[in-house]
Amino acid sequence: MELEFLGTGAGSPAKFRNVSAVALKLLDEVNAVWLFDVGEGTQHQILRTTIRPRKVERIFITHLHGDHIFGLPGFLSSRSFQSGEEIRPLTIYGPKGIADFVKISLKVSQTHLSYPLSFVELTEDGVVFEDNKFKVSCCHLDHRIECLGYRIEEKDHPGELLIDKLRAEHVPSGPIYGRIKAGETVTLEDGRVLHGVDYIGAPQKGRVVTILGDTRQTPGILTLAKNADVLVHESTFGKGEARLARNYYHSTCIQAAKIAQKAQVKQLLLNHISARYVGALATQLERDARSIFANTRVVKDFEVIDIPFKKKGSDF
Amino acid sequence: MELEFLGTGAGSPAKFRNVSAVALKLLDEVNAVWLFDVGEGTQHQILRTTIRPRKVERIFITHLHGDHIFGLPGFLSSRSFQSGEEIRPLTIYGPKGIADFVKISLKVSQTHLSYPLSFVELTEDGVVFEDNKFKVSCCHLDHRIECLGYRIEEKDHPGELLIDKLRAEHVPSGPIYGRIKAGETVTLEDGRVLHGVDYIGAPQKGRVVTILGDTRQTPGILTLAKNADVLVHESTFGKGEARLARNYYHSTCIQAAKIAQKAQVKQLLLNHISARYVGALATQLERDARSIFANTRVVKDFEVIDIPFKKKGSDF
Ligand SMILES: [Zn+2]
Ligand SMILES: [Zn+2]
Repeated sequence: MELEFLGTGAGSPAKFRNVSAVALKLLDEVNAVWLFDVGEGTQHQILRTTIRPRKVERIFITHLHGDHIFGLPGFLSSRSFQSGEEIRPLTIYGPKGIADFVKISLKVSQTHLSYPLSFVELTEDGVVFEDNKFKVSCCHLDHRIECLGYRIEEKDHPGELLIDKLRAEHVPSGPIYGRIKAGETVTLEDGRVLHGVDYIGAPQKGRVVTILGDTRQTPGILTLAKNADVLVHESTFGKGEARLARNYYHSTCIQAAKIAQKAQVKQLLLNHISARYVGALATQLERDARSIFANTRVVKDFEVIDIPFKKKGSDF
Repeated sequence: MELEFLGTGAGSPAKFRNVSAVALKLLDEVNAVWLFDVGEGTQHQILRTTIRPRKVERIFITHLHGDHIFGLPGFLSSRSFQSGEEIRPLTIYGPKGIADFVKISLKVSQTHLSYPLSFVELTEDGVVFEDNKFKVSCCHLDHRIECLGYRIEEKDHPGELLIDKLRAEHVPSGPIYGRIKAGETVTLEDGRVLHGVDYIGAPQKGRVVTILGDTRQTPGILTLAKNADVLVHESTFGKGEARLARNYYHSTCIQAAKIAQKAQVKQLLLNHISARYVGALATQLERDARSIFANTRVVKDFEVIDIPFKKKGSDF
């Protein structure tokens, strides 16, 4: 599980930061990639990575400002031109209006996609998507336009069978191992009774990633970020600019750090960095945030952040 | 007068060729830049040039395929964020549907432009725009979707006053020079009668640039390209692929060269180059076209082509 940042800028593309897009790479988990926002030029950025558009099965849109959606029609069209095996269906989640925008763009350009495309327009906070491996939920944020944040929760992995322990106790291997792993109580030929629960390791806690859209500080952020492994939070403004941030419906690096601390996340990644913050100024943004929440990074375009499992048995 | 190619690829962005966009730089002539097509990422390409978005006053769209228009909403939005002096109005010319696409994109994203934007939807062949310096006309081409080509004609510059000749004949300078330049017949104090027409150089022929959209071979191309200084012609396919080209409503480099010859243009620039033609293959495309029309170039992204005046007095 990795995050790959495709666009970490704010508003308009700048020389070193494209407009918003983040890829959540779930290759080991479900052999797929999910995108969060698709600003103009996202498909160009993807060309410079190892991400294959055909693997993008879900796209989550935070809000409909141009710097978050204008790359969508082009990405969808180009994904259609991929040759080879059949292209998997794609689902787009986002605020009301996203379907209209995409449908009209494809209609005007007479683009006929080679794969099924569906839309889930989100009007209420709650679960957006769930299967046996992941649950995604959304919560409204506070931006000038309707805006959502997403919390992606990986389901816990059940504990592994403690084969070494079984062998040490001379339990003969065979189908009985399967029953023990399933947690059953079994009786061996020699009369011993084994309880499955004694031979299964601690379950592996699933990971949690929180990706926000543009937002002022609002209670929904805490709901989304609580105990997350990674919180991706916008930082359009810097220290001492809380008032500006509020006026423009954005946040400062300090506000992001404070909420990261309050939500007890493991790592804070700051994105949506204004073109005003280049070089040393971006470093300062990071330094200011770290004075409050140490494990903070101002991410760059093409930066890849690994999200490791929590240490086994940690009861986080 | 220069052409700057911002995207010379076909269909989808490739590593070294973005999707379609060409800038006609008229800085000396009218202190403005005109764009022809605005594929996704055009604003990103412009960031790497000296073109200032605020100077783009007219945008001509050839057709509504995504690789020719998906960069339009983003370009228009970013142009709005330019600070400084008031931003000049912008007019978009193109096939029916272009206004809807732009308006809906701006509405969905709640983008409020800081300058007046107007649309001229073109349904018939003929003059699209005319002022005292330029005339632009369009003609329908033959693509799968309605598609236009444009002919940009610079008006002739009147001949200059032959000051050296007047001096050689000891005509005293003064307001009389203005009357002579205006073509009047004047009587000097010493009784001599001068005819203005004898003291005015040959008029400077205006230049003609023809920019096509995607197209099969069709008579409209000749109308647009006749005697042009530069013809920008698509070359999606190569030698020996006329059938493929026809099936996909495109042209080959050979077809482009033949029409350049027939129309007696001065220079042929091939664009809309498929990603299949990289490196040596693109060179081959150029070589094949040159076997028929010598002054041919396969243009690259960011290539700037100067369009000089014709030699004075040449009666082209
Ligand atoms: Zn934004
Ligand atoms: Zn095209």
